[in-house]
Amino acid sequence: MNALTKDNYEFFTKLLKNRVSTDDDDLKKYGHDETEDILILPGIVLKPETPEEIAAILKYCSENHLPVTPSGARTGLSGGAIPLKGGVVLSMEKFNKIISVDTDNFQVTTEPGVITQVLQETVKEKGLFYPPDPASKGSCFIGGNVSENSGGPKAVKYGVTADYVLNLEVVLPTGEIIWTGANTLKNSTGYNLTQLIIGSEGTLAVVTKIVLKLIPHPTEDLLMLVPFRNAEEACTAVAQIFKKGITPSGLEFMERDALLWTINHLGESTVQVKNDHAAHLLIEVDGFDRAQLMEDCQTIMEVIEQYDIDEILFAENASQKEALWKLRRSVGEAVKANSIYKEEDTVVPRFELPKLLNIVKKIGDKNGFKSVCYGHAGDGNLHVNIIKGDLTDDQWNNELPLAIRELFKEVVKMGGTISGEHGIGLVQKQYMDIPFKPVSLELMRSIKRIFDPNGILNPDKIF
Amino acid sequence: MNALTKDNYEFFTKLLKNRVSTDDDDLKKYGHDETEDILILPGIVLKPETPEEIAAILKYCSENHLPVTPSGARTGLSGGAIPLKGGVVLSMEKFNKIISVDTDNFQVTTEPGVITQVLQETVKEKGLFYPPDPASKGSCFIGGNVSENSGGPKAVKYGVTADYVLNLEVVLPTGEIIWTGANTLKNSTGYNLTQLIIGSEGTLAVVTKIVLKLIPHPTEDLLMLVPFRNAEEACTAVAQIFKKGITPSGLEFMERDALLWTINHLGESTVQVKNDHAAHLLIEVDGFDRAQLMEDCQTIMEVIEQYDIDEILFAENASQKEALWKLRRSVGEAVKANSIYKEEDTVVPRFELPKLLNIVKKIGDKNGFKSVCYGHAGDGNLHVNIIKGDLTDDQWNNELPLAIRELFKEVVKMGGTISGEHGIGLVQKQYMDIPFKPVSLELMRSIKRIFDPNGILNPDKIF
Repeated sequence: MNALTKDNYEFFTKLLKNRVSTDDDDLKKYGHDETEDILILPGIVLKPETPEEIAAILKYCSENHLPVTPSGARTGLSGGAIPLKGGVVLSMEKFNKIISVDTDNFQVTTEPGVITQVLQETVKEKGLFYPPDPASKGSCFIGGNVSENSGGPKAVKYGVTADYVLNLEVVLPTGEIIWTGANTLKNSTGYNLTQLIIGSEGTLAVVTKIVLKLIPHPTEDLLMLVPFRNAEEACTAVAQIFKKGITPSGLEFMERDALLWTINHLGESTVQVKNDHAAHLLIEVDGFDRAQLMEDCQTIMEVIEQYDIDEILFAENASQKEALWKLRRSVGEAVKANSIYKEEDTVVPRFELPKLLNIVKKIGDKNGFKSVCYGHAGDGNLHVNIIKGDLTDDQWNNELPLAIRELFKEVVKMGGTISGEHGIGLVQKQYMDIPFKPVSLELMRSIKRIFDPNGILNPDKIF
Repeated sequence: MNALTKDNYEFFTKLLKNRVSTDDDDLKKYGHDETEDILILPGIVLKPETPEEIAAILKYCSENHLPVTPSGARTGLSGGAIPLKGGVVLSMEKFNKIISVDTDNFQVTTEPGVITQVLQETVKEKGLFYPPDPASKGSCFIGGNVSENSGGPKAVKYGVTADYVLNLEVVLPTGEIIWTGANTLKNSTGYNLTQLIIGSEGTLAVVTKIVLKLIPHPTEDLLMLVPFRNAEEACTAVAQIFKKGITPSGLEFMERDALLWTINHLGESTVQVKNDHAAHLLIEVDGFDRAQLMEDCQTIMEVIEQYDIDEILFAENASQKEALWKLRRSVGEAVKANSIYKEEDTVVPRFELPKLLNIVKKIGDKNGFKSVCYGHAGDGNLHVNIIKGDLTDDQWNNELPLAIRELFKEVVKMGGTISGEHGIGLVQKQYMDIPFKPVSLELMRSIKRIFDPNGILNPDKIF
């Protein structure tokens, strides 16, 4: 239905010269992201270099009703970058420049195709900090982070991507280039188009420039790994730490198998998981005053020692810290390497976390599936990885969605929702009726139609 | 055109019984807010008590094309609550309950008609902190803060209202009641309707419940008032303080006349403004560790002593702190008591502040007007109060808007915008073409039409 014509091909080639590909390997490469095992081939891959080129492409595609899927580093976990209806993949990889680091105003202006970690390291050289750090920070693009409103371990103290975006240059599907806001810390000028674009998963506009707020980079941090003999107790401890007035800069939960599989996957020996370890908390505090952080750790220990824990591992130096964080960041790929799985990105108010874990396991028992859970416990954000294991294809394809639906209903009852940081994309859209009433979904669909009257931009995602 | 019929009156009286008024005094009371001297009478004032009553009112008004203006404590400074087209004023004053303070999850759920300071004091009793504190905090409603995305002095460290709103229950103009999001710290589930409603000035929906994030309440603060002999130097010092790695919890600028007029207005004698004082910075730091705050003050002093300053006044106790903050919070009403004026709520990246002050004065000199400037310097948010003084009505009404236009163009050139925290409402809408292209304004107007197809809710505001 959306096969490209010779005319289409000629238009794109004239516009972009050799930055156009229909090569089989390229179509495959851009036909998937990190979401399960989904592959859908686009008709063509375009690599524009300027907002004006994108404007020309989108205007042409709008007029010709050609689907366009913006594509970043394809590290997404909800299928946002998968070209569901074929057509054009618009790769943002050539938008790879950090335009300016403004040390006077603590801001950075960047193109979207910059790797998040590169951005972080660049501003850190000037003493500045861009905190959001998804597990894929070494490969994901900052533009993808904006599109999915990415989080990461630091979000618990420092907030998510949306909390740092001041202003966006975007190209509308109809071809106009606009700035959504201003480069200011406050803004009460009209509707917040900036926040509307953030997390809209490339369905409303293509982001071409991003102005981010920065903060002073903390100079000290301390990290500890705590083995719990009871996973629900680990979850319970989380809210208790905050109730002591401590805001850790990382508070991560890993179930036994999450950590074990990762250790095996990486061949890493820093940590030994004993037979009676049911779960671990990885806890980081950061700031500018080491003595204060030592005190914070003391307070945290007083909290966790009330539970059934084994010996705490304190990271003694930078390389041990890096090793522990690497373990945590690699859980996702370890689970992926281990089994066919589905990942649910549940999020609840943090005190509800033990209840959430309990419900996950109960629904699993009832429906015969095993799950491996981990995530940003301080935010109440639990990644539930459902393992295919011995389930038949019929159970996997037809029964499991009903169990997931049951889980999401419980999550919403707790004041939570169905995605904390991965987005809805392709794989969660069938569940959007759980957090939202039909009238809310219709408002969203109507907003989509305003921005994209011909429905060309990342079609059939989210709803 | 929008006169109420006998039928309309009967409908409202049947629904709300005695919570309906067409009394002259009431119509006058609800016909203005704190914006200059504008008074426009509504046809009727309604005081609903439940979301369901609001739903019935809005549905009826939609069907009957009756304009509805939501009304909070009417402390707004952009005319958002003025019933421009008459019709119905929907007073939210009966929505005055704090529904729950959740000390497990650091959240408060409140109705919108709660006074901001009451909310702050209620959560403070549990050790929790809701930071946004507009100057009118003792009388404004939290719902109005949501509608205008209010800031205040603490925003420089803690952010604005939008940074604390997790979830909203709203009634749509067509009568449906929805929740916009979830009670979670992270959310990547569909378009961000929550942030779209915040700052939309009562044009998209009526807010009936608000879930706010809270943080641990700091236990210590230090406050100093610094007299500068050169106002631009005071502005220059602001960004330099941040560049030393300090994030004050308040960094306020007051021009000579702002402070002098306020001292006279209040009959207050804590502070003496000498002949050579051109401006003052009021600087607060807060946290949990007094020794750390003393160090921060030391660093701040090292910065400001590089400029031509007079003796610094350190607040020695709680009552002196309160006296200094009272001075700052009363500048607005002192200016208002002193002269006919227009207030512009300019905001720029903070390093541009001296340039902004310079441009304000230059445009004033060229156009023959005097201005009194003050505001949240740490945010780059300068309130420019233009004084009528000797200007003729013709100059005031016809020439001044051109000068303001010139000022706003310069603000936007600096990366700034035309409202940092007061909103656009009625009095700034003529300038919306400066920060936004026509296509952006048309996107906003289209969003308005989606939510409010019959255009009944706070009509003719913002655009």
